[in-house]
Amino acid sequence: MKRKLRMGMIGGGHGSFIGDVHRRAASIDGLIDLVCGAFSSDPKKSILSGKDLFLSEERCYGSYEEMIIKEKELPEDKRMEFVAIVTPNHMHFHPAKMALENGFHVVCDKPITLTLEEALTLQSAVNKTKRLFALTHNYTGYALVKQARAMVRNGDLGDIRKIQVQYLQGWLSTAVEETGQKQASWRVDPKRSGIGGALGDIGTHAENLINYITGLQISELAADLGVFGEGRVLDDDANLLLRMNNGAKGTMSISQIALGEENNLAIKIYGTKGSLEWCQENPNELITHWLHEPKKIYTPNGNDLYPESLKVSRIPAGHPEGYLEAFATIYKNFANHVMAVYDGELNTDLDYPSISDGVRGMRFIYAAVDSNKNNAAWTALE
Amino acid sequence: MKRKLRMGMIGGGHGSFIGDVHRRAASIDGLIDLVCGAFSSDPKKSILSGKDLFLSEERCYGSYEEMIIKEKELPEDKRMEFVAIVTPNHMHFHPAKMALENGFHVVCDKPITLTLEEALTLQSAVNKTKRLFALTHNYTGYALVKQARAMVRNGDLGDIRKIQVQYLQGWLSTAVEETGQKQASWRVDPKRSGIGGALGDIGTHAENLINYITGLQISELAADLGVFGEGRVLDDDANLLLRMNNGAKGTMSISQIALGEENNLAIKIYGTKGSLEWCQENPNELITHWLHEPKKIYTPNGNDLYPESLKVSRIPAGHPEGYLEAFATIYKNFANHVMAVYDGELNTDLDYPSISDGVRGMRFIYAAVDSNKNNAAWTALE
Amino acid sequence: MKRKLRMGMIGGGHGSFIGDVHRRAASIDGLIDLVCGAFSSDPKKSILSGKDLFLSEERCYGSYEEMIIKEKELPEDKRMEFVAIVTPNHMHFHPAKMALENGFHVVCDKPITLTLEEALTLQSAVNKTKRLFALTHNYTGYALVKQARAMVRNGDLGDIRKIQVQYLQGWLSTAVEETGQKQASWRVDPKRSGIGGALGDIGTHAENLINYITGLQISELAADLGVFGEGRVLDDDANLLLRMNNGAKGTMSISQIALGEENNLAIKIYGTKGSLEWCQENPNELITHWLHEPKKIYTPNGNDLYPESLKVSRIPAGHPEGYLEAFATIYKNFANHVMAVYDGELNTDLDYPSISDGVRGMRFIYAAVDSNKNNAAWTALE
Amino acid sequence: MKRKLRMGMIGGGHGSFIGDVHRRAASIDGLIDLVCGAFSSDPKKSILSGKDLFLSEERCYGSYEEMIIKEKELPEDKRMEFVAIVTPNHMHFHPAKMALENGFHVVCDKPITLTLEEALTLQSAVNKTKRLFALTHNYTGYALVKQARAMVRNGDLGDIRKIQVQYLQGWLSTAVEETGQKQASWRVDPKRSGIGGALGDIGTHAENLINYITGLQISELAADLGVFGEGRVLDDDANLLLRMNNGAKGTMSISQIALGEENNLAIKIYGTKGSLEWCQENPNELITHWLHEPKKIYTPNGNDLYPESLKVSRIPAGHPEGYLEAFATIYKNFANHVMAVYDGELNTDLDYPSISDGVRGMRFIYAAVDSNKNNAAWTALE
Repeated sequence: MKRKLRMGMIGGGHGSFIGDVHRRAASIDGLIDLVCGAFSSDPKKSILSGKDLFLSEERCYGSYEEMIIKEKELPEDKRMEFVAIVTPNHMHFHPAKMALENGFHVVCDKPITLTLEEALTLQSAVNKTKRLFALTHNYTGYALVKQARAMVRNGDLGDIRKIQVQYLQGWLSTAVEETGQKQASWRVDPKRSGIGGALGDIGTHAENLINYITGLQISELAADLGVFGEGRVLDDDANLLLRMNNGAKGTMSISQIALGEENNLAIKIYGTKGSLEWCQENPNELITHWLHEPKKIYTPNGNDLYPESLKVSRIPAGHPEGYLEAFATIYKNFANHVMAVYDGELNTDLDYPSISDGVRGMRFIYAAVDSNKNNAAWTALE
Repeated sequence: MKRKLRMGMIGGGHGSFIGDVHRRAASIDGLIDLVCGAFSSDPKKSILSGKDLFLSEERCYGSYEEMIIKEKELPEDKRMEFVAIVTPNHMHFHPAKMALENGFHVVCDKPITLTLEEALTLQSAVNKTKRLFALTHNYTGYALVKQARAMVRNGDLGDIRKIQVQYLQGWLSTAVEETGQKQASWRVDPKRSGIGGALGDIGTHAENLINYITGLQISELAADLGVFGEGRVLDDDANLLLRMNNGAKGTMSISQIALGEENNLAIKIYGTKGSLEWCQENPNELITHWLHEPKKIYTPNGNDLYPESLKVSRIPAGHPEGYLEAFATIYKNFANHVMAVYDGELNTDLDYPSISDGVRGMRFIYAAVDSNKNNAAWTALE
Repeated sequence: MKRKLRMGMIGGGHGSFIGDVHRRAASIDGLIDLVCGAFSSDPKKSILSGKDLFLSEERCYGSYEEMIIKEKELPEDKRMEFVAIVTPNHMHFHPAKMALENGFHVVCDKPITLTLEEALTLQSAVNKTKRLFALTHNYTGYALVKQARAMVRNGDLGDIRKIQVQYLQGWLSTAVEETGQKQASWRVDPKRSGIGGALGDIGTHAENLINYITGLQISELAADLGVFGEGRVLDDDANLLLRMNNGAKGTMSISQIALGEENNLAIKIYGTKGSLEWCQENPNELITHWLHEPKKIYTPNGNDLYPESLKVSRIPAGHPEGYLEAFATIYKNFANHVMAVYDGELNTDLDYPSISDGVRGMRFIYAAVDSNKNNAAWTALE
Repeated sequence: MKRKLRMGMIGGGHGSFIGDVHRRAASIDGLIDLVCGAFSSDPKKSILSGKDLFLSEERCYGSYEEMIIKEKELPEDKRMEFVAIVTPNHMHFHPAKMALENGFHVVCDKPITLTLEEALTLQSAVNKTKRLFALTHNYTGYALVKQARAMVRNGDLGDIRKIQVQYLQGWLSTAVEETGQKQASWRVDPKRSGIGGALGDIGTHAENLINYITGLQISELAADLGVFGEGRVLDDDANLLLRMNNGAKGTMSISQIALGEENNLAIKIYGTKGSLEWCQENPNELITHWLHEPKKIYTPNGNDLYPESLKVSRIPAGHPEGYLEAFATIYKNFANHVMAVYDGELNTDLDYPSISDGVRGMRFIYAAVDSNKNNAAWTALE
């Protein structure tokens, strides 16, 4: 591969938080060029946003449909090669499906769609079109998450017995959605968020992290959802019991009303031979315990790491990497995969969350909402 | 009060861990003298243990019955004034009841008894005999736990919405009970521990800590117990959902098979105006959050504390106090209460866990075991 | 500004650590395009490195002289607008001077030059050519370093009395320079590093951080240098006493043989009204103390920050930013400054280390080496 | 030994902080009884203080001379066996000398005396009278300090190259001595403190900790003292360069005007094979690094500790021990030594700071003050 991959963006205009994140993440490793965008459904706004990104006006589109059609008409060596979809949840499905069906690969923000049905339909589209699909469960991109995964997958921890995961935020502990805050208003709106509130927005990250590290799946869960903000209809808090498909048990605590918490995603995994602990707000430490040994703390690019972790670090030990770098790793692996496919390579490392993660995430949301309706009764994930 | 209070001990002979803790805790503040003991049911061992504590042979008894009877016959200014019961759970009820009925005050280790029925009987005995009774939920003795309590009780955190508590240990992650380890063998034995394993041993501490800090009670709980150690019959792991009597929700995670964990009791409490976090292994930090403010960390005897916390610290800020000092605070407050009663004082600060905590703790164990039998169905605490 | 700035790079070919860092840092904010490079003095290697960066062969030069001359001949809207110099220390001066004198702005790695004399000559060149010059003391780019600076500069801490700074690494605790490790071999070589070893490589960062945050200058210092690695001639360890130009006192501890340390740059500043503490390995916490208040910890984009800090954060609180983002902030501010100059703006925020920092850094190295020769006698910085 | 050792106390009446600490420390392990005291030079106050400690009036003396004389006249099995001297510095020498010369063992607070001359005289007295003498450099009593000592002494760290020690407090950052605060007023008064301010009060602890852990001695030092509090004459801040007798180098930073610091004694020791780090405010973690290994953190009574450390812990891992327990370890080892001497044992573990530590501490103060007078010139410790 001796050139950059060309990206088009759907959503992510002025005022978007996550669009900016995607663009930076795509640029850090120098593998991707942003070449066009449908940044807003208002064509004027789309152009204004695009100009700030140094795009020419003719490649700033007023709708994703227009973008997909017009880009397809461009010469093969000019047109975008994949789309990044960074809109609210209800605007994932249609653009993703249309992009796939018109030959474009897709990077999509999470949760994958508004409904489980949409997710399943999208899965069919991915399978049928054979386009590549990445879901930005970005926390899987951290070097020490990859170390944790390698440790568990290699059996270092023995059999997993107990899992504790939490994703705690406090930004919805007051009624910010009534202040005109754009991020808050769509997240508390079921038309744009789907049936899960905090569950969908951050709970799916927690679910994904468990699966990514351990390979285990939640067999059944018992969910007690809370709706603490006055006037809200979606959960802004959730407490869950988990039973995993290997017999392990666990808890999940999710909240957007945990006042003072910023972005406290943390996981603890206990096995018969070892245990580990990782926290997103301090991502450059992986705390581990091994039978009869003192606590050991691993650092990115530090001593005694697995290759799966080492190859993700961009800088020497002691120089912290953060959220954007982890996010960028999704883009890097996705871009490398696309290029490998171009080159006809078959046995490629495909280490990024994909369509099956998206479907499993929707099943998680649905099971939790179902369980809650039945007073937290155990509910299977199928 | 111009003299020390005289203590007799039941249990706590050679090989006991907790007996030694009680003795040190009783001695730190210089208010209590150990004057006699029934350290073992083997009279010879009791004497040997007592001699190492510099007691005269005639006050080292071969049974608690003997001690209670003989001490009662001693002149009022020589005989013990209270007993400290530091035996395994099944040996709490009878000595406590007999001591009360013979006029002695009682300090008792937790959980209070083997069964709920015993606990209720003991409660009647306390009420009838009007003797004082302290239950050593020692973690309530930390200066910053008292600060947390004062903050919540004074409304600083607003309405409590979410509670997360955990008590994680790893010492039973292998089959230590089969190695002859005394501490392990009785804890996994229902005849000596009761119907709860980890639930009774450490879960009751977690339940007590919630109540002590917030004043809230668990209305109902859903408990999923784990028995991971081969051949065990009692829970060595427990995951619970909690609903509090004010509408707050929460999780509790208890384990003795969480490999690598030493004594990780930690609590987070989220309100509408603030939140706090405290961890027993780092007890000299109370982490708090307040709306629109940076994180604030309080230290014992440090700045801006409530009097309830300040008066507990024995040394200036920056000099860590630990487990024994917190334990000692139970003894100090108990001793001061006894002396106040002697002096006819009525409005005395009675800040130590007591008989009602014991009964509530048993209800907690029973509700959790019941819930688990019904596949983690919601179960009320009455 | 509606386009990206065009960057050429000197050094940074295959095997370079810092070249990659500069490229990523330049790309994160989408303001800069790499358009050419003299990545190696071997033309073939330069081309190979450039191709991996998707550059066309004709803009991969075999020497910096060639690049400067040839780029100057290109049309104004195609040629590079500034050079990034990422070579070892001895290769900073000539390229920088030539670039300036041919009309190019310069971003240069630290320490600025091999000798103080060169630094002074370069300062004249900057002044004469009126080109912009940035020195990548990248740690000044962290959001909380900017918060610390704003606090001190606004007088929140009162008068500064005591400063403690350290920059500790352990990677030279064994003789890695003998293993062919490229990073190590030039750093222990006075011909390529200059008269300072650890002093120049990391001590200058520590000196710069003090000045950046406090605005204070070191009046005199007493330096005790250590050369612990066998066969080395340059310091690999240094302990210094500092006297600041306002009467404050302090210590500086520098090491590359502090076994186990990764990149432990940390600073504590004590004033009459408050104090603060920041550590590069955990850059998303700024610990502060204020008279009669509990400890307060600030987080990037969190509560109660100064605008100078807030505007640097790229993502919401709780999403860690790291080394590359801080580095990128130097590039962003430099790029914005260049564009502002193009636009004729005069009152521009010029918040990045520059030529005067470079000269002061060299004076620091020289004073420390001088002091050490005189058995750590006090030595002024002029 | 089948009885408690009898202690008399000099100083430590109402309003004393350290008297209370000594009494608690002496009581925790149940080996020592307080039997008499000269708590104040005002006989009435002495009696009042003693009564609160449940002593009989006739053993509360109005002066240490009276106590020593009268106690000596008591029957051998009733009289005190050692004195604990807890007065300000200027009141250590005479009581200690008189006690020794009258046959009593001595526990004395630090720094040992007001002057070096006194210290040397006292050393002669100890040697001549063959009484035991303990100096309460209490931080040596922590379990993990003993682990650090064992590691270094056993060569685990290889050759020591670098030492960084600090003891930072902030309580004198304002003029508290003018508020009538008893602790502050004598500490800033050279008549009662000696020629060192912070140097004597806390610097000696730092010096002692280095020596205790490493066995190394400071060969020469360069000291820059600060007197920041208006009107003060003694140092309230000190920065030092250290050269050790094995060629290691280091820094020491001492302060009582480091606003916000509580009791931040911390040490880092770097060797050729490993390094370690310990901080008094978080005493239950010993952070270590070993070549090519991830960071390892040891906990008291945890995994993989040396017997020297294990035998000091009183409770299982995860139950924090603090300042009083460490202090108590000095008393315990001293008491055991006295008893061993009574029993005619010769090869006794004598693990507590003693008279030679006291003399070395005075040499440290004198050298630092001398160095400072000579503008921080290198000054030998003899």
